[in-house]
Amino acid sequence: MYDASENDLRFAIQHGLDAKMREMVASVYDLSDDTVDAVLSEAAKFSRDVLAPLNHSGDIEGCTWHPDNRVTTPKGFKEAFQQMAEAGWCSMEASEEYGGQAMSKILSAATAEMWHSANLAFSLCHLLSQGQIHALETFGSDDQKQTYLPKLVDGTWTGTMNLTEPHAGTDLGALKSSATRDGDNYRIKGQKIFITYGDHDMAENIVHLVLARVDGAPAGIKGISLFIVPKFMVNADGSLGAQNDVKCVSIEHKLGINGSPTSILQFGENEGAVGYLVGEENQGLQIMFAMMNDARFGVGVQGLSIANRAFHQAKSYAAERVQGIPMERELGDTIQHHPDVMRLLSGMRAEIEAMRGIMVYSAAANDLAKNKAGDSAFWASRSELMIPILKGWLTERSVSIASDGVQVHGGMGFIEETGAAQHYRDARILPIYEGTTAIQANDLIYRKTLRDQGVAVRALVADVSETAKTLSTSDDTISTAAKALVNAAQAADGAIGAILTGGMSMRESGAVSVPLMMMLGTLCGGWMTLKSAQAAQEQKDSGNWDQTFLDAKIAYAHVFATQSLPQVDRYAQTIKAGGTAVEAVSPEMLWA
Amino acid sequence: MYDASENDLRFAIQHGLDAKMREMVASVYDLSDDTVDAVLSEAAKFSRDVLAPLNHSGDIEGCTWHPDNRVTTPKGFKEAFQQMAEAGWCSMEASEEYGGQAMSKILSAATAEMWHSANLAFSLCHLLSQGQIHALETFGSDDQKQTYLPKLVDGTWTGTMNLTEPHAGTDLGALKSSATRDGDNYRIKGQKIFITYGDHDMAENIVHLVLARVDGAPAGIKGISLFIVPKFMVNADGSLGAQNDVKCVSIEHKLGINGSPTSILQFGENEGAVGYLVGEENQGLQIMFAMMNDARFGVGVQGLSIANRAFHQAKSYAAERVQGIPMERELGDTIQHHPDVMRLLSGMRAEIEAMRGIMVYSAAANDLAKNKAGDSAFWASRSELMIPILKGWLTERSVSIASDGVQVHGGMGFIEETGAAQHYRDARILPIYEGTTAIQANDLIYRKTLRDQGVAVRALVADVSETAKTLSTSDDTISTAAKALVNAAQAADGAIGAILTGGMSMRESGAVSVPLMMMLGTLCGGWMTLKSAQAAQEQKDSGNWDQTFLDAKIAYAHVFATQSLPQVDRYAQTIKAGGTAVEAVSPEMLWA
Repeated sequence: MYDASENDLRFAIQHGLDAKMREMVASVYDLSDDTVDAVLSEAAKFSRDVLAPLNHSGDIEGCTWHPDNRVTTPKGFKEAFQQMAEAGWCSMEASEEYGGQAMSKILSAATAEMWHSANLAFSLCHLLSQGQIHALETFGSDDQKQTYLPKLVDGTWTGTMNLTEPHAGTDLGALKSSATRDGDNYRIKGQKIFITYGDHDMAENIVHLVLARVDGAPAGIKGISLFIVPKFMVNADGSLGAQNDVKCVSIEHKLGINGSPTSILQFGENEGAVGYLVGEENQGLQIMFAMMNDARFGVGVQGLSIANRAFHQAKSYAAERVQGIPMERELGDTIQHHPDVMRLLSGMRAEIEAMRGIMVYSAAANDLAKNKAGDSAFWASRSELMIPILKGWLTERSVSIASDGVQVHGGMGFIEETGAAQHYRDARILPIYEGTTAIQANDLIYRKTLRDQGVAVRALVADVSETAKTLSTSDDTISTAAKALVNAAQAADGAIGAILTGGMSMRESGAVSVPLMMMLGTLCGGWMTLKSAQAAQEQKDSGNWDQTFLDAKIAYAHVFATQSLPQVDRYAQTIKAGGTAVEAVSPEMLWA
Repeated sequence: MYDASENDLRFAIQHGLDAKMREMVASVYDLSDDTVDAVLSEAAKFSRDVLAPLNHSGDIEGCTWHPDNRVTTPKGFKEAFQQMAEAGWCSMEASEEYGGQAMSKILSAATAEMWHSANLAFSLCHLLSQGQIHALETFGSDDQKQTYLPKLVDGTWTGTMNLTEPHAGTDLGALKSSATRDGDNYRIKGQKIFITYGDHDMAENIVHLVLARVDGAPAGIKGISLFIVPKFMVNADGSLGAQNDVKCVSIEHKLGINGSPTSILQFGENEGAVGYLVGEENQGLQIMFAMMNDARFGVGVQGLSIANRAFHQAKSYAAERVQGIPMERELGDTIQHHPDVMRLLSGMRAEIEAMRGIMVYSAAANDLAKNKAGDSAFWASRSELMIPILKGWLTERSVSIASDGVQVHGGMGFIEETGAAQHYRDARILPIYEGTTAIQANDLIYRKTLRDQGVAVRALVADVSETAKTLSTSDDTISTAAKALVNAAQAADGAIGAILTGGMSMRESGAVSVPLMMMLGTLCGGWMTLKSAQAAQEQKDSGNWDQTFLDAKIAYAHVFATQSLPQVDRYAQTIKAGGTAVEAVSPEMLWA
């Protein structure tokens, strides 16, 4: 069962942000009720009617690689992508100059949640294209923008990111693909692996962004440049010419997201693929990182999406399946009435609520950072701080939530036809691609905690604490959850203190970096569910929302406070103990 | 890469138990160094040479259902099973009267760990047969014992458990299969689903133990009887006769354990399958539960096994893969030198150490309960208390550990050829079959905590606490881990107090039952890793063990104490908050 969670998104967008923050975003972007309603209801319709029905069939059929180096996607994908493009869903974020709608990231994130929830494998193509649009808007030449952006924005073409090589994944500095100057342009040679939608049949052309090393460039990450390598050459009039010297030599057999082709691309088997330099030589990594932040945000959203899909699947099953008489309930009552099934379902739901809050908040921070509506330096810092938390925590939790979704189904969850297992398989890529959990945690602890001596991260914890303290003194129904959050914020602050001044070595810090990331994710989750509960209380007399819907928001805050928030203390204990115990284990011990 | 962890098992068996407990077991069973060494080294050889090589190929090929209702297992399975039988591995636990070796459960559990780690799908057949042997030894008539046990014990035949029907899984009271008296015997009709190795080609005959309802029996669980239904009828001289009226009408397409057939069996499509009553009419559930405790122990061991397999796979990859220069290390150093990779690997390893300790301890308790070597009533109670903890905690953690195993591989983990993904898929069934996690937790909280007002469970926590306190006052290297365990035991005791006297409703108790189970599992894990570290210290001057091996045991205790043990506090917080927040969520809220 698919549910776009349109009302939950609407509530999070309209009431999840502090009034002041919302006002700042609304001063730059259209966040009127009419616009939000129109976008969400149309997107919900599209994701429900077009994308969701292809999710399970796409997984079963998978993609097909043909000996003439073509890849075909599962039945229905091509038509769905054309519909998506025609409906204008590829153009939400891009600037108007290139056919875009220049909408708030809050709205594009909300629709992305729906796309990925409906069909994760399908929507990956869109995610990559959006990242490419963002990169070219920021770093492309005028000519490049004119040539590529309109077609990417209207969905005639799609984009890819070509980073990984067999020996260069997390460590991009090790990549070997070469670029040789050839007149104004370059000839690219090399093999790229794990290229999502590296070849497919859904669009007329595929624009590859490729990292390669110009002959004579410095070793390591300082010698990497970024190139546009179109699959089909683009003539001066915009029409398509001959195929470039790039071909898909294979696709991977994966655990999940089987509807999406993960390609091995061979560049320059003959004369070299024609590549157009983006920005300056040796600037490639910097540009790619700008694009990657966007993609990391998108993958974090995928975590929310797959968790939500798994939840709705489990919720539907639990509402239909009869098994035993639940304690103090009636014969014939479904399994959702068993206390532990409700523990699982409400726990999943509370974390999804938390994830969605983090997504909307991070998107708003991104909007403010870009548009200088308020203190843009502060919001740039806050937005950057949220990226590893969003990507790391949401995706890690999504794996557990998808696993809980299987568990709710009992034995049926293990049968592929049921569908729950697909979410469990699909979710597993999320803590890996676009920077593993460890990479997010490294970014968080070294670049965003230690470098500024904790200023940004402590400011975040202080904001959480302030909300929690304010709400804890009221004697209404949310004060117990608020008090739990006050304590959690204090524990988190203590753990951060241990990192900053506890005398940990740099390696020991690395060993507690994931616990730090998970701790902050949980803390922010507590913050968001509490804010949502507060908003629900304020809306009680508005007449705009169903009372059960509002009661649920409050209930989820309590579920989060009692089921998830204790994780903050747990991670804080691990952090305070330091990485000493981990560092004391040598590889030899593992083999002894 | 497969590693039978033979030395770790030897150490756990020889030094993991308190001297007094070990002495009691050794007074009944042969636990001499020679016997232990011989069994472990032969089993390691067999699992490494015969079973492990068929694990990945079995997953890829899967089982095949043929239109004439036969099932064939993957290439090599049949021959491997014959070798297993010939080597005497099917007869370890059975009594000598029927050709068994009447060994300690400690040894059969240790070899089971190896079988399941080498090939989970294959070894499931063995697990079910062992449960059947146990049930027939205890409840079968003399004639039934003579007819079936020798062939099951020598591996000529295999056994199955037939419980589940489409509408009766966890709730066996709902089952509808019927048994009609026919002379001395019965005619069985009905459909059973999820029957592991319900049909296959590895043995001459398959003995089904089937739950069914004798015509006129009381409704619900009180009207269930247990029957032996052989696939092929057994003549008076022991030779095989015609096929019984039972056939395999389909097998399931599953997420994992694809090498094992999960069958739908149709009994009595014609004249009714001939069934022989085991015990008395309407005693079926009671007998099945005796068998199920055995199977639950076995599935708990499977949790350890798959976790260990995932660990060795990840460890091997991490020792070969070069990616980036690990902080403060050299160019070319492998990823095992990255702090977070070591956090994952050492964390996996420490929990495996904990699991193995729990397995050996529980097996010893089982031995003592059965053989009246010491206070058998106490050991029966302790043994029964350990079953839900062993089954629940080990299998839940195995899913996370298999997931961590994928994570260590980065992108390669998501590619099926690598093998890590198979463990992640295979592990997912473990918290589901033989009683879901919720069923284990219900058993723990209602039958084994509330019923005796916490006597058994508090005695366990007191034992943990006593070990921890004793070791915390020394000023050697393990006292910090011991102190953490003292605090954890105290937190656990407080949480148990909240369950016993905190005024929780019965439904609220249900909502905190899984946290209770996970809390006690973690606590016992801390106990076992600490005891292992203590033994390692004592062995330092013995000359019997490699120093790095002993250092590793001590190091894992610290890793467990800092990475896993903080979970005790976390679960205690959730328990103390009670199930109120979960109970406040109504199904309507989930749909609002």
